[in-house]
Amino acid sequence: MINETIECILAHRTVRDFEDRLLSKEQIELLVHCAQAASTSSFVQAYSIIGVTDTDQKKKLSEITGNQASVAKNGHLFVFCADLHRHDVIGELEGKDVAVSLESTEKFMVSVIDATLAAQNTAIAAESMGLGICYVGGLRNDLKKVCELLKIPDKVLPLFAVAVGYPATINEQKPRLPLEHVYHEDCYEQDQAVYKEQLQQYNEEIQDYYAKRTGGERADTWTGQMAKMLAHPQRLYMHDFVEKQGLNKH
Amino acid sequence: MINETIECILAHRTVRDFEDRLLSKEQIELLVHCAQAASTSSFVQAYSIIGVTDTDQKKKLSEITGNQASVAKNGHLFVFCADLHRHDVIGELEGKDVAVSLESTEKFMVSVIDATLAAQNTAIAAESMGLGICYVGGLRNDLKKVCELLKIPDKVLPLFAVAVGYPATINEQKPRLPLEHVYHEDCYEQDQAVYKEQLQQYNEEIQDYYAKRTGGERADTWTGQMAKMLAHPQRLYMHDFVEKQGLNKH
Repeated sequence: MINETIECILAHRTVRDFEDRLLSKEQIELLVHCAQAASTSSFVQAYSIIGVTDTDQKKKLSEITGNQASVAKNGHLFVFCADLHRHDVIGELEGKDVAVSLESTEKFMVSVIDATLAAQNTAIAAESMGLGICYVGGLRNDLKKVCELLKIPDKVLPLFAVAVGYPATINEQKPRLPLEHVYHEDCYEQDQAVYKEQLQQYNEEIQDYYAKRTGGERADTWTGQMAKMLAHPQRLYMHDFVEKQGLNKH
Repeated sequence: MINETIECILAHRTVRDFEDRLLSKEQIELLVHCAQAASTSSFVQAYSIIGVTDTDQKKKLSEITGNQASVAKNGHLFVFCADLHRHDVIGELEGKDVAVSLESTEKFMVSVIDATLAAQNTAIAAESMGLGICYVGGLRNDLKKVCELLKIPDKVLPLFAVAVGYPATINEQKPRLPLEHVYHEDCYEQDQAVYKEQLQQYNEEIQDYYAKRTGGERADTWTGQMAKMLAHPQRLYMHDFVEKQGLNKH
C-alpha cells in the first residue's frame, strides 16, 4: 500500500532553517496550481494566497512572529488567507444581497477550511519536490499589522504562512498521539479511564523523546506542555478582529 | 519538477459514487497515520477522527446531508472534528485553568485548521492508493444530530466527513479560478478593474465547461452560481451551536 506519496506524507517534519536560495517562478506556480487542485466547499474557492518576495516585507512579517527565522529567510513565503471578499464583489456584480451569508460563522468556517485544504496541498507538493516547509501561525500575533502590510481588504483573514525552501537543517519527527486516541470507531471514546490512560502512555513516549534529544536534560510530558501553554490564553483580540474583518459575526 | 505526488494532487476530482467494497483495517490505519503526520499548531493536535463503520449510522448521517449517496455507500467514512475536549481533560489532569484559552476564537481557528490539515493528508494518501474521495460539508446541516449520533462531547465540533472508497464513477475536473486571481505577489490585488476582469474571464471558462458537459443545456457563470447560492444564507444556527459546544466564545 505504501507508495511515494504516502512515504512523503509520513516523512513530514518541520523545517525552520532554510538555505539562502529562492524558488523559481515555475516552482511557485506549480505549488499554487497544487493548492488550487484541492477540494473546495460547494466550489466557493474561498481563499487567497499572498506570495511574499520582498525581503523587507519578510523581515517585517518575521518581527510579528517574534523574529522567526523561517519567515525572514526562505525560498518563498506563502500567506494563506480565508477569503470571502471575492464573494462580496460577486454579490455586487450580480446584484444580490450576500451579506448575511458572508458574515456567518458557517461561511467563516468554510473559508478557513478551504484555505487550509489548499495550504496542505502546497505543503505536500513542496515536500515531494525535496523542499522543506514550515507552517507559521505566529502571523496571528498581530493580524492588524499583517493586513496593513499585505493590503488585505475586508472579509479576508490571513490565517498562517507556509515558508518553503531548501532545507539547511532537518528536524526530527515528533511522535504523535496514539492512533487509538485520535481515531475512534462509530462514536467518540466514551471510557474516561481508557482516554486518560492513552494520554499517560503518550506522556511517557514524549518524555523519552525529549530525554533522548537533550541527553536527559528535558523531561516534559505532553499534557504538562499543553496545560502550561493553555493556562496563558493567547491572541484574545482575535474574536473582535475577525468580526471587524466582517466575518464570523452571526 | 512533476513527480508522482504532484501528479496525484493535480489529478484530484471528487468521487461521489463508490463500489460496494470496504477498505481494510490496514488501509484505514494507514490513512489515519497519514492524517496524524500533518503539521499541527504548537503541537496541540487539536482534532479527532470518527470512522463510521455501521451501515445504519452511515444511513442516518446521509439523511442529514440530504441523502448524499457517498455518505451512505463508501469504502469508509471519516468524520473530521475540531477537538479541544482533549485539552479540557488535560487542564483537569494538570490542575491548570485552560478555559479561557479553549473558548477563544483563536483556539477555535487552530482546531479547525489542525483538523483540516489532517483531513487533506488522508484525502491525498487515499487518492495516491487509487481510491476516490469526497468531502461532505452537508453534515453541518444538523450538527446537533451528528453530535448525538457520534456521542460527541463538549468542545468537539464535527466539521465535515471524508468519504473514501473504490470509485464507481469518476467525475470530470472543474476548472479553477485563474491563478492570478487567487495568488497575489507582495500584497492583495489592488486594481479593481483587473480583479473583475479575471472573474469575467473565469465566467467564460466555466460557461464553456458546463456547455460542453451538458450539450449546451447549462450555461451558468461562476459568479452567477455563487451569488445565487449566497443570497440564501445557510446554517445560520452555526454561530450559536459552536458557542454551545464551548468554542469560539470570546
